[in-house]
Amino acid sequence: MEYSLQTMTPKEIMPGFSGRMVHGQKMSLVFWEVTAGAEVPSHHHEHEQIMHVLEGRFEFTLDGQTGTYGPGDLVLIPSGVPHSGKALTDCRLLDAFAPVREEYR
Amino acid sequence: MEYSLQTMTPKEIMPGFSGRMVHGQKMSLVFWEVTAGAEVPSHHHEHEQIMHVLEGRFEFTLDGQTGTYGPGDLVLIPSGVPHSGKALTDCRLLDAFAPVREEYR
Repeated sequence: MEYSLQTMTPKEIMPGFSGRMVHGQKMSLVFWEVTAGAEVPSHHHEHEQIMHVLEGRFEFTLDGQTGTYGPGDLVLIPSGVPHSGKALTDCRLLDAFAPVREEYR
Repeated sequence: MEYSLQTMTPKEIMPGFSGRMVHGQKMSLVFWEVTAGAEVPSHHHEHEQIMHVLEGRFEFTLDGQTGTYGPGDLVLIPSGVPHSGKALTDCRLLDAFAPVREEYR
C-alpha cells in the first residue's frame, strides 16, 4: 500500500490540528500541520506514542514536565501517561502510535 | 523520554544503512541515512513496517512490485510480506516498526 503526503487529504482532528494519516494493523503514523497557538489539552491513552517535531516550535508537557521542542526532537510517551501540547509557532509534527488510533480512521 | 536526532549516534546496521533509533515498548522508529547504491536484500519479518522517504530516491520492492519513491512517499509493509530496497541516491528514510525491532537495540 502506497501513500504520498502530497496527495493525501488532511483531517482536522482538533481545532488547529490537521493530520495526514497512515493506519496499518499495528500502528498509525499521523503527519500534523498545527496552527500557531493551537493546544491539545492534557489527556492519556493506552497507545504508546512517539512525537517528533519536523518544523516549528512545540511546547509539550509529559507527566507534568514541560519542555520546548524543535526540528529533530522526539518525545516517547509511554502508554497511559498524561500529556499536553501547544504550538508556539506553526508546526509540522509526526506522531507514531501503537496500537492503531482507531478513532482517527 | 527525550531524544534529539542531532545528538544521537547512528548505528550501521547494514553496509550503507546507518540508523538513529527510538525504541519504545510497542514500536521502534529508525531514521536512516543511506548511501547511494546501498541495497537491502529481500527479507521479511513479523513486524509491520511503514517506510517513509524524507530525502533522495529509493527503489523499493514489496511482494514483487517495484516502485521508485521520493520525499513524502510512504509504503505500508504488512507483517510477513517480503520486501527489498536500493538507494538510487543518498537518502534519508524513516522506518516505523511494530512491535519493537529488538535486534536493533
